[in-house]
Amino acid sequence: MLSTTKSKSCLAALAASVPLSVAVFGSSPDGAERAPVIEMPHWGYGYHRNLDKDEIDRLLVEIPDPERLRRWHDLLAERPHRAGTPGDEQVVDRLVEIFESMGLKVERHPFWAYLPEPVDAAVEIVSPDRLSLAVSEPAIEEDPDMAHPELDIGWNAWSGSGDVTGRVVYANYGTIEDFEKLEELGVDVEGAIVIARYGRGYRGHKAKFAEAAGAAGLILYTDPMDSGYMRGLVYPEGGWAAGWYIQSGSLKTLPWAGDALTPGYYAGEDVERLDPEELDLPRIPVQPIGYDAAHEILKRMTGQGVPSGWQGGLPLAYRVTGGDELRVRVMVEQRAEIRRQENVIATLKGAHEPDRFIVVGGHHDAWGHGAGDPLAGTICIIEAARTFSELAERGMRPARTIVFAAWGAEEYGLIGSTEWVEERMGQGLRDNCIAYINLDMSAMGPRFRASSSPSLRRAIAHASTVVPTAGNPDKTVYEDWVERGADAVFDDEPRIGDLGGGSDHVPFWFHAGVPSAGFGAGPTDGVSYHSNADTLTWYRQIVGDDYESALMVTRMTNATVARLANLRFVPLSPARDGVAAGREADRLARLAIQRGIISDGTGASDGAAPDREQLRAWVAVRMIGEHDDVGHVIRWMEDERMERLAKVESDGIGAFNRDTIERARSFIDDEGLAGREWYKNFLISTNPNTGYGNVLLPSLRDALDAGDGEAFWRELVRLNRMMERSSTPGV
Amino acid sequence: MLSTTKSKSCLAALAASVPLSVAVFGSSPDGAERAPVIEMPHWGYGYHRNLDKDEIDRLLVEIPDPERLRRWHDLLAERPHRAGTPGDEQVVDRLVEIFESMGLKVERHPFWAYLPEPVDAAVEIVSPDRLSLAVSEPAIEEDPDMAHPELDIGWNAWSGSGDVTGRVVYANYGTIEDFEKLEELGVDVEGAIVIARYGRGYRGHKAKFAEAAGAAGLILYTDPMDSGYMRGLVYPEGGWAAGWYIQSGSLKTLPWAGDALTPGYYAGEDVERLDPEELDLPRIPVQPIGYDAAHEILKRMTGQGVPSGWQGGLPLAYRVTGGDELRVRVMVEQRAEIRRQENVIATLKGAHEPDRFIVVGGHHDAWGHGAGDPLAGTICIIEAARTFSELAERGMRPARTIVFAAWGAEEYGLIGSTEWVEERMGQGLRDNCIAYINLDMSAMGPRFRASSSPSLRRAIAHASTVVPTAGNPDKTVYEDWVERGADAVFDDEPRIGDLGGGSDHVPFWFHAGVPSAGFGAGPTDGVSYHSNADTLTWYRQIVGDDYESALMVTRMTNATVARLANLRFVPLSPARDGVAAGREADRLARLAIQRGIISDGTGASDGAAPDREQLRAWVAVRMIGEHDDVGHVIRWMEDERMERLAKVESDGIGAFNRDTIERARSFIDDEGLAGREWYKNFLISTNPNTGYGNVLLPSLRDALDAGDGEAFWRELVRLNRMMERSSTPGV
Repeated sequence: MLSTTKSKSCLAALAASVPLSVAVFGSSPDGAERAPVIEMPHWGYGYHRNLDKDEIDRLLVEIPDPERLRRWHDLLAERPHRAGTPGDEQVVDRLVEIFESMGLKVERHPFWAYLPEPVDAAVEIVSPDRLSLAVSEPAIEEDPDMAHPELDIGWNAWSGSGDVTGRVVYANYGTIEDFEKLEELGVDVEGAIVIARYGRGYRGHKAKFAEAAGAAGLILYTDPMDSGYMRGLVYPEGGWAAGWYIQSGSLKTLPWAGDALTPGYYAGEDVERLDPEELDLPRIPVQPIGYDAAHEILKRMTGQGVPSGWQGGLPLAYRVTGGDELRVRVMVEQRAEIRRQENVIATLKGAHEPDRFIVVGGHHDAWGHGAGDPLAGTICIIEAARTFSELAERGMRPARTIVFAAWGAEEYGLIGSTEWVEERMGQGLRDNCIAYINLDMSAMGPRFRASSSPSLRRAIAHASTVVPTAGNPDKTVYEDWVERGADAVFDDEPRIGDLGGGSDHVPFWFHAGVPSAGFGAGPTDGVSYHSNADTLTWYRQIVGDDYESALMVTRMTNATVARLANLRFVPLSPARDGVAAGREADRLARLAIQRGIISDGTGASDGAAPDREQLRAWVAVRMIGEHDDVGHVIRWMEDERMERLAKVESDGIGAFNRDTIERARSFIDDEGLAGREWYKNFLISTNPNTGYGNVLLPSLRDALDAGDGEAFWRELVRLNRMMERSSTPGV
Repeated sequence: MLSTTKSKSCLAALAASVPLSVAVFGSSPDGAERAPVIEMPHWGYGYHRNLDKDEIDRLLVEIPDPERLRRWHDLLAERPHRAGTPGDEQVVDRLVEIFESMGLKVERHPFWAYLPEPVDAAVEIVSPDRLSLAVSEPAIEEDPDMAHPELDIGWNAWSGSGDVTGRVVYANYGTIEDFEKLEELGVDVEGAIVIARYGRGYRGHKAKFAEAAGAAGLILYTDPMDSGYMRGLVYPEGGWAAGWYIQSGSLKTLPWAGDALTPGYYAGEDVERLDPEELDLPRIPVQPIGYDAAHEILKRMTGQGVPSGWQGGLPLAYRVTGGDELRVRVMVEQRAEIRRQENVIATLKGAHEPDRFIVVGGHHDAWGHGAGDPLAGTICIIEAARTFSELAERGMRPARTIVFAAWGAEEYGLIGSTEWVEERMGQGLRDNCIAYINLDMSAMGPRFRASSSPSLRRAIAHASTVVPTAGNPDKTVYEDWVERGADAVFDDEPRIGDLGGGSDHVPFWFHAGVPSAGFGAGPTDGVSYHSNADTLTWYRQIVGDDYESALMVTRMTNATVARLANLRFVPLSPARDGVAAGREADRLARLAIQRGIISDGTGASDGAAPDREQLRAWVAVRMIGEHDDVGHVIRWMEDERMERLAKVESDGIGAFNRDTIERARSFIDDEGLAGREWYKNFLISTNPNTGYGNVLLPSLRDALDAGDGEAFWRELVRLNRMMERSSTPGV
């Protein structure tokens, strides 16, 4: 528990030791201990003054219905629905119908995206013997959906087309470190067929690094150690990957999300487009296979053994090189064209502040039937929409507008969501979009989890106190969640991670700067990800047929959105962005001093010495980064200001909310990050080397990695202004 | 680096805060900083006053010869030599011949031990189909030794004889926790054939726990995850276990070491013996197999999946239960009889103190050819004997006697060494045996490592500063070793672990209390342990054909033994036993307070409150356990006393050495540990639940585990007397 006294005296000691006064937090709280369960004192000041707030929370939990979740699942997972296929058009039609039946205003939002499709592929052992390996998954008796004629072969969208044969090199997970290791081992990758396992990063980066190392082709496979029999029983007996399981998926690693030919602007029908030939997409053929097929290749390898950590779960000692005799062929043919796609946008207009809105979204396209990815999220969006529609019908229309979105062509590079965001950027999205909640493959198990922008965390944590956890009506999500680990700064809140890449929150958070969250639930005792086994049969056998997980995710969505939509005070905590930045800046600054890149102003280092403005930034960093009790101060500030403002007039609240939303965009700079200017968030970005991960303070990190003291100070000063803006109320 | 000033003031603060004065360490040092490389100031005061000490160290390093090590290896690994076979008799004859050729006095020390031998065995799948599984290893083309007609089938000595058929239960590593997990899972082990993998503890305990759980039979196998293809290339291409590899080995878990029929006394020809029927040896048949054979069983299992951590490296999802159809048969037949065996004892008499002696030993019996186990240690003993013989011939006979021992029948339960120790217990062994150095399967790789009694660590660390590390003449063992981690208390010494069970130091250290060490070197990129593949071919291909590892181990043995045999001051540091005890007692006392078993005297706990004597013990524990700088104080005490005593007469040195040896036995109490009275060391014992591991302060640990506050205080008082004795000089 946090001690106020300590907080006060430590702050005082810190203040006395620094030469500049920095108005980051104002003064410190007066002595009340916080309860171990998170509270939101301003939760009472909602728009629905005539209703008990507990009554609303009760309805948000009661209305969602597992039978209806099941029905949405039946409707949407009936047929394979890859973007650009008739199956996906049918899904769009059904979504429009469903949302319209709830009385929502529904828009088919079109965009014209450049989309690839598979034509042909082969992987073959050419010598010492000739053996053709499977590039498609079988129809298995226990899962009739897997025999659907519209299912594809396994493929990696955006692969180069070509037909190559070569020696074999095993590259572990194909990460940048793995390719560095190969170089260190003196392994010649030039002209080789690289085989690498899925995992530890986005598949597109594996292709990028393989091509950069000179590989002629790349084979990706799922190793049994990572997702097969070494994890548990395999499908159809259990849920884990059988030897035939093939993960398909995109390889795009362009420095912008969305349509490949319209970077940073809406892919309308008639806009000017890039020439596809100029795009930095893979040139080499890349083909995914299953581990039975990979076994055939690996067991014919006769070269040197692998370094520590490279062994997988196939029954042989893995080797880095294939030896003199082994030759493998990879052939891939794909074609791409510009196609009209649609987002489905269903709107429930707010009663009091209709221009301000919250977006709840997820994609509708899949690789196959998509029962897990995306539909285990999509069905929760629908059921949340039904909850708020029903509340509106009962006279409890939300104060602010809620937009329910089903995005198109996510699987080819987050296209639908990005095009919508890019189109709305000039139409007040930044000023009026309070938050984005992403639900993609969310309901996959009994334990709730979330990643989000720091400024959204308190609202999510508070929502979790009113929702029962899956399968246990007597325990809240909050209790179950916080048991698994508390937040590093706020010790009565559950641990909520930072968002990475890989789903439709990317344009909202990393491009537009809208505070975002991704909701999910696990663990899942198996994997059907991006495989033809991602069917209702798999889902109901492995995740469950009771829809308890989807029910919980829907309720969490409801409770979170209700707080964002109904509280008179927009429940964002922009100062938490500042805290996150300060802590990371402190860490990076220590590293920079250690490496002699910058000096701390005491003259102890050879690094670039700070000037007055830099020193001011430096002190702010120390204020936040080194201070144990910073969480306590922030919490006090959040509550104190809300409570004080609760007593003022509506006009004051309007200004306060405008200010809050603006401050929650403090880390956005339209200049963008060097080398990938589409990314405009200086607090956090996706990790350019892994795709799925993230980097805090990317511009400062780049300066550190480059050993550039001048750039380090420049970025620290920029970030300090952002930190101050996030933490210093304008009203 | 340690700061004397800090040490002084902390000690003073500590002293001021405790109500009783405890004469554990005397006063504190006066201010000299220690160099970061260990020094022994008294190293100069050796018996060879006419010689430069550096010159002796040079000879100890120069005389050992890789070509001779190779020759000893050829002579002893020529033929399988399990205890009780003609091959082992031949090895004994050759050892006698070799030691005699060096001019040593050689004794064939006989003992009559109860020894089992294999008669027949079978493991068979009975249903759903019938399949006989291999219980012996193949002769492989690349290793002609594996075709030797005297090699045995794979077997576990001391198994019950019987023929049983039953359902199958997989028990992971067969540890006590694994059997508890099975019970928690509701798995019925009664009447089942348990299959468990080797690893995480002594195989005898797996049999014990399986039998206690009601198993009808036990199959042990080596999993590819632990020692097979998942670790690297398999034999003969690499060194790791192929699918046919079978680990043989003893199952004895009696509460005493040595001959099963003569607990605690010498197994002479005509002594009275226990009735074998009364021994607590396994009743169920236990049979080891390879992982190819285990795969046949595991792949026919159809029951429930395994809990986390139980999956091995075979290509299937492991299951706990076999299902309805699978039935497996285990048949084992063994017979046992009393046989005459021999230790080979070669003595080099000391020139100045011939009654005081150091023993350097290791066993001569093996499971097959024994190139690794034991000969990678035995050949170093021989070459060390040759070094000291040659020095004696050149006029540099050691001051004290050195005994080189090759023990018989170690593999059946440390029999030869135990019988020798038990015979000598009444003949002054405790008074005169300064230390025992064990070399068993020692030279297995390039990095030196050791476990030892705390009192021996400084001498070993000091020896390591004069020996070059394997393969690098410019780097000492000390430098290489300390890089891998420093001692927790003495930060300029390498980390030397505590001795566990499993080799011939057991009777010396845990029964007689003679300070002991085990020397080794690794890592080994493979395993031939207790297999018919433990041949010269395997050893020379995997460990190396240059004998650099054996050379290093021999030199380390030489340098350590020379310090023990030649320094006028016996270089033991008994106070270090006290420090080790104090630190552990402090840890256990905190646990005991936490659990409410004892009170710390401040009235804060409900546990039994201490009386005056107990409080005194408690304070001593705090003095040592909580004090960061205790290492510094000990080091100062060691050096200061030696340097002061260096100025006195020989008579004084004699008394000083007698006192040192006595204090190094401080933790020995002939009462023995409750329930296993043969173990008389209260500082440390083998772990009764794992066999190979160890337990510090076993009597205190037992009291803690039993939740018995009275026993806890009683043992703490006993240990405090021992700690004081170890640390308070009598002269």
